[in-house]
Amino acid sequence: MSEPLFRRLALIGIGLIGSSIARVAREKGLAGEIVVSTRSEETLRRAEELGLGDRYCLDAAEAVEDADLVVVCVPVGASGAIARWIGPSLKKGAILTDVGSTKGSVIRQMGEFVPDGVQFIPGHPIAGTEHSGPDAGFAELFRNRWCILTPPADADEAAIAKLTQFWQACGSMVDTMDADHHDLVLAIVSHLPHIIAYNIVGTADDLETVTKSEVIKYSASGFRDFTRLAASDPTMWRDVCLHNKDAILEMLARFSEDLSALQRAIRWGDGDALFNLFTRTRSIRRSIIEAGQDTAVPNFGRDIAEAGE
Amino acid sequence: MSEPLFRRLALIGIGLIGSSIARVAREKGLAGEIVVSTRSEETLRRAEELGLGDRYCLDAAEAVEDADLVVVCVPVGASGAIARWIGPSLKKGAILTDVGSTKGSVIRQMGEFVPDGVQFIPGHPIAGTEHSGPDAGFAELFRNRWCILTPPADADEAAIAKLTQFWQACGSMVDTMDADHHDLVLAIVSHLPHIIAYNIVGTADDLETVTKSEVIKYSASGFRDFTRLAASDPTMWRDVCLHNKDAILEMLARFSEDLSALQRAIRWGDGDALFNLFTRTRSIRRSIIEAGQDTAVPNFGRDIAEAGE
Repeated sequence: MSEPLFRRLALIGIGLIGSSIARVAREKGLAGEIVVSTRSEETLRRAEELGLGDRYCLDAAEAVEDADLVVVCVPVGASGAIARWIGPSLKKGAILTDVGSTKGSVIRQMGEFVPDGVQFIPGHPIAGTEHSGPDAGFAELFRNRWCILTPPADADEAAIAKLTQFWQACGSMVDTMDADHHDLVLAIVSHLPHIIAYNIVGTADDLETVTKSEVIKYSASGFRDFTRLAASDPTMWRDVCLHNKDAILEMLARFSEDLSALQRAIRWGDGDALFNLFTRTRSIRRSIIEAGQDTAVPNFGRDIAEAGE
Repeated sequence: MSEPLFRRLALIGIGLIGSSIARVAREKGLAGEIVVSTRSEETLRRAEELGLGDRYCLDAAEAVEDADLVVVCVPVGASGAIARWIGPSLKKGAILTDVGSTKGSVIRQMGEFVPDGVQFIPGHPIAGTEHSGPDAGFAELFRNRWCILTPPADADEAAIAKLTQFWQACGSMVDTMDADHHDLVLAIVSHLPHIIAYNIVGTADDLETVTKSEVIKYSASGFRDFTRLAASDPTMWRDVCLHNKDAILEMLARFSEDLSALQRAIRWGDGDALFNLFTRTRSIRRSIIEAGQDTAVPNFGRDIAEAGE
C-alpha cells in the first residue's frame, strides 16, 4: 500500500460531511491516522461506536496537535470559536481547511487565529443530503460532485495542490475561485432554494382553509419535492442565512421581482408570457442531467429507490 | 377472467396521464375495448405503435360513440372545446370524467355540453412525473396515489361508486370533495410549488454575475430539485395558471408575505426566527414519508435509481 496523503487527519465536527470524509478517507487510505473531535460527548461516543476514527477528543486543540490536515466541519457560525480554540495548537506546515457553505464569513472569522506557517485554504464540497449527524454520512457522498476551494491570493501552491489531490481522491472534481464569487454562486444555487423551500412549507403549514392532512395526502403533486430541502439541518441553515446575508438578500430581491412579474401575468391572463417562461426553464434541467448532476429517471427515481429498499 | 368494469373506454388525449390509464386498464383488464383519440396525427400514430389501445380515432366524437367511460385527458384549457365536440355523441348512461388539475374551470367549461342522461363526474389523479407524451406513461403511475373526484351535488351514486372502483383498480385511493375546495388544496400542494420552481429557475437563468455553467455544475447543492418541476409540460402549466387564477393568487400572496417576513429576519439577523421556521418544517416531511407519499432514502434515492439504470 502506498504512503497515505496525510500522516494525521483531524476532523473537527463529525456530522454528515465530517463523517463522510472520515469514511472515504478510511476507505481510500488517505490518512495514516484519523482524529475525530466534536464538542458533544454523545456525538463523540456515537462516532466511536461507528468506528469513524482512530482517536476521539472532546478537546479540539488536542485533536489538531501534530495533524497535517485539519478539516473544520461545523456550522459556519461556529467557525470563529473553533479557530480561536485550535489556532495555538496547529502544527507549522499543516493545512487548515473547512467545508462551510459560506466562504467570506468563514475567512473573516477564522483568518486572525491562523498562525504563521499554517496554510489556510477554505473549501466547500457541493454535496449533501437532507439528513444530518454522524450516522448520515457515507463514503460515496462526494463522488462526481464538485468541491470549491477559495485560497487566499498568497496561498502556497503546493498546499492547494495537495488539498486538491485529497478531494479528488474522495471522488470530487475541484474548482478554485475567490470567496466573494463563491458566496454569490452559492446564494443562487443553494441558499435561495433552501430558503424558498422552507418558506413554502411554512406557508402550507399555516393555512386555515386547507388541513395539514390534505397537504400530506396530496403532496405527490409537487409539494413533497420542497419538503426534502426543508428538512435540512436548522442550525446549519440559520448560520448560512446569517453569514451570507448580502448575497442572499440580492438573490431574494431578484426572485421576488421575477415572481411579481409572473403573478401579474397570471392575474392578467398573459398565457404567452407564462408559456415562454415555462418552456425556457426546461433546457436547464436537460443540461444538469447531461452534466451528470442529476438523474433523468422520472421523479428522481424515488419509486425505484423505494422498491429496492 | 371476470367481466371488465366497462365495455368500452374512450381516452381523449394520450399524454402522460392518458397513456398511463391505457396501460393500467389493459394490464388489469378494466375495459373490454380501449379507444384512443388525440388531435395530433403524429401522437396518434405513436400511441398505435405503442399498442396503447384497440382502436385509434382523430375524431373525438367518433371515439366516444357507445363508450361507457369517457376520460378526457387534455390540458384544462382545451376541455371546453372537447366537451362541445364530443357532447352530442355521448351515449345515454355513459360516465364522463376528466383528469384536469383544476376542477371549477373544467366544470364551467364542460358542464353545458353534457347531455341529459350522461353522468359527468370530474376527477383528478394526484400523480405525475416531469415527463410528458404517450411514451412517458406507465401502468404503476397511480399506485398508492390519491385520486380526487368532485361530483356535482345531484350526481348518481352508482356512477360515483363505479368510477371510484375504476380508480381503485388502477391502484389509487379515492377522495371526494367539492370543486372549490379541490382548487384551493391543489393551489398550495401543486400549483404554487410548480410556479415557484419555474420562477427560481428563471431567476437563475437571468443572472449576469453567475454563469449558466456554474448553476449547472453546482446544482446538487439544492437547485437541481427545483428543475424537475420546472421541466414539466408548459402547455399544461400555462393552462393551470390561467384556470385556477383566484386560488393561485391567494396562495402567492400568502407565500410572498411569508417570504417578506423571512427576508426581514435575514436582514436583521434574527437567528431565533430562522431557527424556529427551519425546525417546524421538518415534521411535515416526516408525516409525508409516514403516509407513504415520499421515500425516506436520502436525496430521493436518485443515486440508487441512477446506479440501477
